[in-house]
Amino acid sequence: MGKLLVVGTVAFDTIETPFGKTDKILGGAATFIGLAAANYRVKPGIVSVVGEDFPSKYLELLKEKDIDIEGLEVVPGGRTFTWSGKYQNDLNKRDTLSTELNVLADFDPEVPAAFRGAEVVMLGNLHPEIQMQVLSQLDSRPRFTVLDTMNYWMEHTWDSLLEVIGMVDVITINDEEARQLSGEYSLVRAAAKISNMGPKYVLIKKGENGALLVHRKRIFFAPALPLEEVFDPTGAGDTFAGGFTGYLAETRNFSFENLKNAVIHGANLASFCVERFGTERLLDLRSDEIAYRLQQFRDLTQFDFEVQ
Amino acid sequence: MGKLLVVGTVAFDTIETPFGKTDKILGGAATFIGLAAANYRVKPGIVSVVGEDFPSKYLELLKEKDIDIEGLEVVPGGRTFTWSGKYQNDLNKRDTLSTELNVLADFDPEVPAAFRGAEVVMLGNLHPEIQMQVLSQLDSRPRFTVLDTMNYWMEHTWDSLLEVIGMVDVITINDEEARQLSGEYSLVRAAAKISNMGPKYVLIKKGENGALLVHRKRIFFAPALPLEEVFDPTGAGDTFAGGFTGYLAETRNFSFENLKNAVIHGANLASFCVERFGTERLLDLRSDEIAYRLQQFRDLTQFDFEVQ
Repeated sequence: MGKLLVVGTVAFDTIETPFGKTDKILGGAATFIGLAAANYRVKPGIVSVVGEDFPSKYLELLKEKDIDIEGLEVVPGGRTFTWSGKYQNDLNKRDTLSTELNVLADFDPEVPAAFRGAEVVMLGNLHPEIQMQVLSQLDSRPRFTVLDTMNYWMEHTWDSLLEVIGMVDVITINDEEARQLSGEYSLVRAAAKISNMGPKYVLIKKGENGALLVHRKRIFFAPALPLEEVFDPTGAGDTFAGGFTGYLAETRNFSFENLKNAVIHGANLASFCVERFGTERLLDLRSDEIAYRLQQFRDLTQFDFEVQ
Repeated sequence: MGKLLVVGTVAFDTIETPFGKTDKILGGAATFIGLAAANYRVKPGIVSVVGEDFPSKYLELLKEKDIDIEGLEVVPGGRTFTWSGKYQNDLNKRDTLSTELNVLADFDPEVPAAFRGAEVVMLGNLHPEIQMQVLSQLDSRPRFTVLDTMNYWMEHTWDSLLEVIGMVDVITINDEEARQLSGEYSLVRAAAKISNMGPKYVLIKKGENGALLVHRKRIFFAPALPLEEVFDPTGAGDTFAGGFTGYLAETRNFSFENLKNAVIHGANLASFCVERFGTERLLDLRSDEIAYRLQQFRDLTQFDFEVQ
């Protein structure tokens, strides 16, 4: 079974939406990526760090999903990274209420021997130097590396960010970040500029407005599935990345045509993620539900007429 | 050849975008709809009104495109409806600088005898009572009627608007208007509520974020073609409606499957409209350009994998 190496945060999230408020619940980029990828015939391995306050039931939960957590360091006496945020009424904007880095501040990632030869690597949103440290520990260049990042690193660690961007096959960022990174308003032009920084593929996430995959002059678009209700968008981008890389690690086909499929798989899993708080919906997701909704994506987007 | 009856404004537009400013140029919903529909094997006939100040070269231009203008009344001594607007930097918002109704204030539409049996009717955005007057002059219920409207009529002529909404097969409005009309934030729920007001199909336009066609539980999504540059969005929605109804009037197939195709044709023509000021790009549009871009829509949206 193909291996998918995932680096990213494992965290406590406290989330407030117009529909309710959570206590400290399981969150973090690596968590969502791992749980999403676990829906494919692939072995995800998480490289991350938590504190002694991290409940063993969460560790068990990840193991039950067949996620390898040898690379998940538990710091004795340490406290887990904690994020708290509140969504505005339309769920498209959120305010961060507090961030406590805790053990993440001194995170020194160590890739377990079993994952140093992983074919696919997903670098979740983190300090770009940590992302690079992970890449430097690998036996060889992975067949396929995907990078997620955010505006914070553009503003604070520009040089390191550019360095890691130069080392990956795909960069996935949201539309505003693509504009900020490139200085171009048009997403088509933004993608071209970002591709010149290194990545062959640029995957621009637009939330409820879908995602664009760009490779030179080729563009593929996947909509978000229109839902009656979006409950909590937390983790949707990471779930998307987990579906994208999980599908690729299973199929081991990195052609543009198959990347299109991977984008649909990512959008599909993200559509479940937003239906409940945090990881809740991913935890009880069944394969028949996934298949049914893939068919909905097909109905949503496929048409058939002759071009004359 | 199938007939497409179009009612809507024929106007002078003065447009300012970050890229430049026009003099008074040809505009109006019926103009864009007619020019877009003229790309299909169909006879569009416009019902509208202009003043004596309307240049005969514009009338000639419509006739050269094989648009029937018998229903386009020229009011002696009257002045043509005039709109002036300015787009903000990201082109997603515009401010109306001035509106002069002029001859539109007393518009008493008359459908020419040759178009009273039109199979497809496109009611462009106008006072709902004028839209109803047009429907009341027809020989029989058209096979397919499409209605465009806007928030202004929801705020000022609610009862008449509801009446005309109850008489059509498709309503096309933008996302904010769909929310306003239904009182629902979720577009899926908004479409369901609006469909209960009468229209079998609800077509929600989201500008650069594409369009949703909803029929009961079935949803089809057409993205906007990602462009390097959007120059002027004026008329894009009307061009979309013109492509949609033009394609339907040509193919005379009103199944949901063919409506999907019509939505793609509408989005395709709209992608040209925004490339230059006003109607400029529609006027020199060639059929090979249209076909090429339809292929781009296919590449943009079509994927192929087995759902297990």
